[in-house]
Amino acid sequence: MSDLPKSIEIHEEGPREGFQIEPGPISTADKIAFIDALSETGLQEIQIASFVNPKRVPGWADAEEVVSGVKMRDGVRYTGLWLNEKGLLRALDAEGLTLKGSISNVTSEAFMIRNTNRDKAQNRTVQINQIETYKKHGIPMYRGGVMAAFGCNFEGEIPVSRVLESIEEIMDIAAETESPVKVISLADTMGWATPMSIKQVVGAVRERWPELKIALHLHDTRGMGIANVYAGLEMGVELFDSSVAGLGGCPFAGSHGKPAAGNVCTEDIVFMCAEMGIETGVDLERLIDVAEMAERIVGHDLPGSVKRGGSLDKLRASIH
Amino acid sequence: MSDLPKSIEIHEEGPREGFQIEPGPISTADKIAFIDALSETGLQEIQIASFVNPKRVPGWADAEEVVSGVKMRDGVRYTGLWLNEKGLLRALDAEGLTLKGSISNVTSEAFMIRNTNRDKAQNRTVQINQIETYKKHGIPMYRGGVMAAFGCNFEGEIPVSRVLESIEEIMDIAAETESPVKVISLADTMGWATPMSIKQVVGAVRERWPELKIALHLHDTRGMGIANVYAGLEMGVELFDSSVAGLGGCPFAGSHGKPAAGNVCTEDIVFMCAEMGIETGVDLERLIDVAEMAERIVGHDLPGSVKRGGSLDKLRASIH
Repeated sequence: MSDLPKSIEIHEEGPREGFQIEPGPISTADKIAFIDALSETGLQEIQIASFVNPKRVPGWADAEEVVSGVKMRDGVRYTGLWLNEKGLLRALDAEGLTLKGSISNVTSEAFMIRNTNRDKAQNRTVQINQIETYKKHGIPMYRGGVMAAFGCNFEGEIPVSRVLESIEEIMDIAAETESPVKVISLADTMGWATPMSIKQVVGAVRERWPELKIALHLHDTRGMGIANVYAGLEMGVELFDSSVAGLGGCPFAGSHGKPAAGNVCTEDIVFMCAEMGIETGVDLERLIDVAEMAERIVGHDLPGSVKRGGSLDKLRASIH
Repeated sequence: MSDLPKSIEIHEEGPREGFQIEPGPISTADKIAFIDALSETGLQEIQIASFVNPKRVPGWADAEEVVSGVKMRDGVRYTGLWLNEKGLLRALDAEGLTLKGSISNVTSEAFMIRNTNRDKAQNRTVQINQIETYKKHGIPMYRGGVMAAFGCNFEGEIPVSRVLESIEEIMDIAAETESPVKVISLADTMGWATPMSIKQVVGAVRERWPELKIALHLHDTRGMGIANVYAGLEMGVELFDSSVAGLGGCPFAGSHGKPAAGNVCTEDIVFMCAEMGIETGVDLERLIDVAEMAERIVGHDLPGSVKRGGSLDKLRASIH
């Protein structure tokens, strides 16, 4: 009936996303305890810190302290985010992190200019310089990311051809610098995707670059998150970014303020996959406990559904 | 890539579901204003009242007043719910309602006994008597409903063969009473469905009864609602029950109490369909306004996502 993968990998971004957006302040000890708990769920990769300007993102001023406090567990890759060489140098100094090179492109120049104050030509130069920095520090190239791959608040519809063009530009840079990317990440940065556009875009990328691994980075702005994951699964996508409890979003912003759009929720993905026989390696009950822990730490409810509805395995166990 | 229908029909159940579960009290005037606003959105069918025992469901003690207060709009069918002849007689007295006969079955006898205090044999008799009552009052037969079609909190997994058996029993009753059903409604009463099980069950029913129209009645207990609607669309399902704003559910029950599982949210379905080129006949902007009205009336946030994220057409209009 469809082409569902046997297993998928989840890159957990909850700590980095959540502690960045929450008004907080959230204590360093809480962040460490939370990451330690996440490490026990079976997740293979967790983004645990953001090395960005603490004046712009005060929630991550303690990035180094958090990383040094985490009990690094064997078999889990701990990653960090940086946006420039200064951040990268901080990440290099933070012991225990797995550093992966990535470069990024945007389908929409209007959004690129608004978001990074660069036009396409300038972005190309920045990305090439980025790769040179990776080389200098021995960081292997990993991911090419395409933002606004499904639509843009500033340009509107993004034709599939434009997504292919953006990937083409990444591939050119990768070839020029002899730094091939292993994964192309398609990001629904502003929550425009539907299951149909997921299938169209993923299908077109796959047809053009059959050897490339595709990752989906989906936001749940308009409630399409899990349906979009499902559409991705049907297209054979095996790699998803997500946030436990939907950290990074806030259901209370609501119609009364600017809505905060979170990533699609990790435990909801894990639940859907488990029920459909797709292996994630994650222990759902433990992950639900961590999602509830996230709510206690941030002090309010978070978007995820399965932590409210409960797992079915728990129900099954109660029946017999 | 898939078999998406060109258009679907939505049966809106928000007023009946919502005003039944909300602690309220919600004034009769608010209910009427809300239903009148819903009538202006393009929805073809709205369930506007529940003729049940007011001692058991005090929120619907004013069913007659509500129905008589609504400005019945041409082209909209207004329906009601009843559970026995007493309720049906009240519905018959309420002017302007479209009455449609339905009978119901449950895949799980454990749930049936718990929910209605009947075993399968007793339920058969009750359903046959129900049809006799419809005949007496000239109400045409319309729907056969199968509850717990995707899993059961009291029995666990429900094999597809059991769903087919339940439909077979409905068909037998319909044949015996010469009252053919036009629609088989498959209800995910306790929120067990995944996109995969939706496809399996709908596929099996379609194969066995290709001429039957299938409706899906989905609850969003574990966040799978919209993904399940999408899976239904991919199987060509053209009829969905839903609740504006996700009325009937409550995001605040959360892990702190018993979770209240609402129907999948109407405006989220309408949004997804509109973005995928599937006609619903519903004006999304108006429906979002009504969803926000629902929140004002019940006095708290409700589950739907698109009312928070906003429509894309509004964004598109702001771009050019």
